[in-house]
Amino acid sequence: MTHEYERIEVPRNGLRLHLNENTGGCSPRVLAAIGRLGPADLATYPDYGDVHTAVARFFGVDESRLLLTNGLDEGILAAAVAWLRGSARDEAIIIEPAFGMYADAVEAAGGHMVTVLPDDQLGVPLAATVAAVTPRTRLVFFASPVNPSGVVVPPEVIGGIARALPPEAVLFLDEAYADFADSHFLGELSHWPNVLVGRTFAKAYGLAGLRAGAVIGHAGAIARLRRIVPPYSLNAAVAAILPVALEDQQHVAWYRGQVEISRELIYAACRRLGLRYWPSQANFVLVHVGDALTRVTAGLAARRIYVRNRSSQPGCAGCVRITAGVAAHTRACVTALEEILGHRGEA
Amino acid sequence: MTHEYERIEVPRNGLRLHLNENTGGCSPRVLAAIGRLGPADLATYPDYGDVHTAVARFFGVDESRLLLTNGLDEGILAAAVAWLRGSARDEAIIIEPAFGMYADAVEAAGGHMVTVLPDDQLGVPLAATVAAVTPRTRLVFFASPVNPSGVVVPPEVIGGIARALPPEAVLFLDEAYADFADSHFLGELSHWPNVLVGRTFAKAYGLAGLRAGAVIGHAGAIARLRRIVPPYSLNAAVAAILPVALEDQQHVAWYRGQVEISRELIYAACRRLGLRYWPSQANFVLVHVGDALTRVTAGLAARRIYVRNRSSQPGCAGCVRITAGVAAHTRACVTALEEILGHRGEA
Repeated sequence: MTHEYERIEVPRNGLRLHLNENTGGCSPRVLAAIGRLGPADLATYPDYGDVHTAVARFFGVDESRLLLTNGLDEGILAAAVAWLRGSARDEAIIIEPAFGMYADAVEAAGGHMVTVLPDDQLGVPLAATVAAVTPRTRLVFFASPVNPSGVVVPPEVIGGIARALPPEAVLFLDEAYADFADSHFLGELSHWPNVLVGRTFAKAYGLAGLRAGAVIGHAGAIARLRRIVPPYSLNAAVAAILPVALEDQQHVAWYRGQVEISRELIYAACRRLGLRYWPSQANFVLVHVGDALTRVTAGLAARRIYVRNRSSQPGCAGCVRITAGVAAHTRACVTALEEILGHRGEA
Repeated sequence: MTHEYERIEVPRNGLRLHLNENTGGCSPRVLAAIGRLGPADLATYPDYGDVHTAVARFFGVDESRLLLTNGLDEGILAAAVAWLRGSARDEAIIIEPAFGMYADAVEAAGGHMVTVLPDDQLGVPLAATVAAVTPRTRLVFFASPVNPSGVVVPPEVIGGIARALPPEAVLFLDEAYADFADSHFLGELSHWPNVLVGRTFAKAYGLAGLRAGAVIGHAGAIARLRRIVPPYSLNAAVAAILPVALEDQQHVAWYRGQVEISRELIYAACRRLGLRYWPSQANFVLVHVGDALTRVTAGLAARRIYVRNRSSQPGCAGCVRITAGVAAHTRACVTALEEILGHRGEA
């Protein structure tokens, strides 16, 4: 079980840098909007007209190309069910290291999982992935930026994989962290009918608790997902506040700026400590601490700072993943890391 | 497409008596609790410890026998995926007239649907259902009280069907409306390892918009569902307020009392108007208006009162389903119905 979400007991008042949550919280305008919810909002089945229009406009896509989901997890599961149900011989390719939800979804849908092992860069290896494609391939899952390395997958790699697929298959490109990257694939998506892009409002928008994801793609593929996802899977609270969250781009820009500062803080600490890290375009950084792994995670936990041990993932032996969000939180983590590893640096 | 949720455009400020929503709204204590949600509640993945314990205690079951879901819809879909994936020859039996989500879930999971037609009573016919069981049966879906007739299925019928199933199959008993019935099957469930009971907080608790359902059953069957449902499918808002809602049983008792009054108001109107109705143990009543169907639904809609045309469902030709909740709302509906049908009665 490599599940991203495996139960790690973390005190709610600790410094949670283990799930790439937005520790700055959501927009204050969102909180105010939550407070304005009335009895009818809670007691009646939600109307998605406004939120669907607002999100489609935000992504610049026709409404027929958008599906809102109960967190991106639901979109991942729905894709697995839609493309893998009906035959345990249907194959899904997962490129490691990967978000654990892909494997869980393939298992849930009863498909056959094919794993592609990573190279040292922890990106997506084009040749190895294309070599794993067979006539039974129905689905390919990977993220860009990759979780946990933060590496952005170049469009020519994405396109190369999409071109290699049999006609019945789709590539599910998880762009959960694209809000923090210099580039994304969404803008090119209209040229690729067999690619689905997943987005989430959990990270940049600080809405992990309220559950809102989106899948964008060819209208036919979206219609296929729509037949899987229950009609009222998005809750009324998030349906009401998502347009408000999208309007407050200042709040998103603030958090994005904090992420950039935080990544540089972590890189600088790694250089001082002689630790390898992967330059990241997400709100986390993967750091190789090697033999010091247990000392680092236990030492941080003793200070109520929680990072994610990613050692069990292929290519990630001796690695922790540290959320790189609010700069003050990152500074606390970096200071603690230097204490634990015995460096008296310029932190 | 017989979907319960098919898109019917209904103004939010009309009298919504078409989806069996609680038009009295949720408990004021729930609303207050929503207002107390903070940024961390929205921005971090929810912790389900408290809500899971509270709901398990409320139902009087061990926590291993409970799964909380994003509305009961998600539980229905997860059961279909868990028991039907992998072979289009696996069969699900649906007893008509039925909540449309069952058929949608079977289709989503890629299973083969077997339909049992109703008798005149619109209950669950034991002999016909048992006759539909084959070695390929994996799942049986029906509700008690039945939606749309409101008829409670006797325990001997439920047990008789459960006993007739092959060892790999389960009976999914949807008790979405059991809060309004004189009896339910949940108390006997521990004797029936191949029965799953579904519950919802959408109706009696007035939380349809926030999405919270529960599936209760044998720990092994629940574990099987847990491998399908994504780990954070319940949103943080409903996770925080559900224990508060469960504590306010006064509010539930008030609504239940209103339902009892409303059912009698509808029965009395039917008797005056010479219309057949099915005595109901749910928060709705199915009424046969026959040839007057279009006149009734259009006439009510012109008065901004919305009921559900159930004519297309097997056994329900000429029928509308009227939500029987807040008595004042029912009185408005009954008065309008009598105007439309030309009766100057004692309404």
